[in-house]
Amino acid sequence: MRTAAINRRAFIGAGAASSVWLAAGNSTAATTDAVPKNYRRIAVEECFNIPEIAEVQLAMGVSRHAIQMSNATRKQLFEGLLEVEAGRLRDMDAAGVAMAVLSINAPGVQNLPDAAQATALARVANDRLAELVRKYPTRYGGLLSVAPQDPAAAAREIERGITQLGLNGVIINSHTNGEYLDDRKFAPIFEALVALGVPLYLHPREPSDRLAAAQDIPGFNVGWGYAAETGTHVARLITSGLFDRYPTLQLVLGHGGEGLPYFLSRLDNRFEFEMKLVGRQTLQRKPSEYLRQNIHCTTSGMNYWPQVRMMIEVLGIERVLFAADYPMEDMLPAVSAMDAAPLSAADRARFYHGNAERLFKLRS
Amino acid sequence: MRTAAINRRAFIGAGAASSVWLAAGNSTAATTDAVPKNYRRIAVEECFNIPEIAEVQLAMGVSRHAIQMSNATRKQLFEGLLEVEAGRLRDMDAAGVAMAVLSINAPGVQNLPDAAQATALARVANDRLAELVRKYPTRYGGLLSVAPQDPAAAAREIERGITQLGLNGVIINSHTNGEYLDDRKFAPIFEALVALGVPLYLHPREPSDRLAAAQDIPGFNVGWGYAAETGTHVARLITSGLFDRYPTLQLVLGHGGEGLPYFLSRLDNRFEFEMKLVGRQTLQRKPSEYLRQNIHCTTSGMNYWPQVRMMIEVLGIERVLFAADYPMEDMLPAVSAMDAAPLSAADRARFYHGNAERLFKLRS
Repeated sequence: MRTAAINRRAFIGAGAASSVWLAAGNSTAATTDAVPKNYRRIAVEECFNIPEIAEVQLAMGVSRHAIQMSNATRKQLFEGLLEVEAGRLRDMDAAGVAMAVLSINAPGVQNLPDAAQATALARVANDRLAELVRKYPTRYGGLLSVAPQDPAAAAREIERGITQLGLNGVIINSHTNGEYLDDRKFAPIFEALVALGVPLYLHPREPSDRLAAAQDIPGFNVGWGYAAETGTHVARLITSGLFDRYPTLQLVLGHGGEGLPYFLSRLDNRFEFEMKLVGRQTLQRKPSEYLRQNIHCTTSGMNYWPQVRMMIEVLGIERVLFAADYPMEDMLPAVSAMDAAPLSAADRARFYHGNAERLFKLRS
Repeated sequence: MRTAAINRRAFIGAGAASSVWLAAGNSTAATTDAVPKNYRRIAVEECFNIPEIAEVQLAMGVSRHAIQMSNATRKQLFEGLLEVEAGRLRDMDAAGVAMAVLSINAPGVQNLPDAAQATALARVANDRLAELVRKYPTRYGGLLSVAPQDPAAAAREIERGITQLGLNGVIINSHTNGEYLDDRKFAPIFEALVALGVPLYLHPREPSDRLAAAQDIPGFNVGWGYAAETGTHVARLITSGLFDRYPTLQLVLGHGGEGLPYFLSRLDNRFEFEMKLVGRQTLQRKPSEYLRQNIHCTTSGMNYWPQVRMMIEVLGIERVLFAADYPMEDMLPAVSAMDAAPLSAADRARFYHGNAERLFKLRS
């Protein structure tokens, strides 16, 4: 492979392969009004990195089960993540994206074996992110990173990031060393989220060793593996009674809600059936009620009308937010697809910015 | 818990919980023509059991990670599975289901440690099923069971079941002792399927130990765990190049295709991206092409219009088949929902019987 022939633009070009989907998805759509280029579009799952974390990740090979690309390729990919000013803003302008809510690329600091190092690096990342948001207050918002390896320290960092740095929420990239957040030891993190009234973006990463069969599926590592990992994580959180313990907690899921909207009716149906079989009731509400009261979903990497329509239909428009997943996906086809979606002006405003402004307390 | 208060009818009643979904899903639907009660509806994922297998399953506790119900409850549930004549036919008549394609309840004989015992029991099950189909040739079709524990014997049983017993296809319940069918040792099974031109129904079961994080999620064991298991299995099959090796092979997935239709556009997009990152091309075609050329999906447990519409939209009407998942689900709400679905008469005929007749070579 000639790595020299690869650049971020070429990677991003992969998104164009899905243009057939956009067309197919919109085939039944009513003609929509033209949406102005300078419309306020907020993309809420946009990743970046800082040199300190990129360096550690490159040295470690990122994660044992991350996609096995050459280090040269990974370095080129990282270039796009490290570019947080002129180049990124230019791409945002070209696509008509007014604002990006940034977060450190998965798995963040969550694969570092040393909790103290992870905690320190998350702190550096958050300082850097806050600096960026201060410099471009109309263009960037930010989700702070934590090291769940040390739940108490993570809770303190959440408080610092929200109250002192003015960031807009928290991101956690699914499992941390194979542990999921339904483990009660992570309670301090949820206590902090609820006390501060900020949402947790549960972002995917490569499946844990407890989902070994979903690891290393060549070509489907992200498309299927990430969703199996993160969807299973959410299934564990819901059934653990997390939202009964924290009724105001808000979770944000990317990538079309990692499959949950597709299964929502079945989850209700089988939940009731299984509770009858085992003869007890483990949750206060129906699964769909948690999804409609505690979960928001974004369109990162899933800006295809059939999927977006389903999300809106089963969750309600006020829980569906726009995201592009830049630089892993190109912003332009995402915006083109969603501009062409048959949404009313009021719903389009909710989808593109109103929901994000409310959820992440962004200035409108 | 008063197990005496539980009966199969009460279990089945759980399906009614989802009536709100049916209504919500159909809210945007055009009014459809009334469908006559005696319309030819074929349900293709309908399970039963034989006393010999039920006995072994009850003695073993079915599977280590099966839903932990009392043995008394399980026995009652098994009663419905063992009822294959008057009671079942009455329920079919009441729901307007003309024909059921039967298969042994998951995990069949696949959790038996002794391959010879499993092979022998599958043979008994297939003889019994063939007898039933001969007795009610207009009401029943059948998918034969195999013991993948012995792939060569399984291949021989497929040949016997199709050529001598006249059955209509094969069912395998996802993993066998933690092994997935992408392992090349299972090649004899696929060779037999392709040589005979019959489809393989890949049915769910509880997740393997290689998907431990998806095991034992109280209330979501079926709704999420089964789909994580089976969807991951299919992801492994596709990425293993199975359909490049056997281009005519047809797989059937239940439960709305176990989530794959929802992710189809993303699978294409991320597959292309990942192939660029790793610098090689592992498959001859795009993921969506395999789904549209090698996979059929059924509506078992997913007879909700938003999901069914998505399946039809992304796979095409000729690859979507009706199934009720009786007796785990009630047939009546499934039929009511699909009768109300806004399908043309020609598409409804394909969905309810035409596709099934062609795929399973049922007499029309």
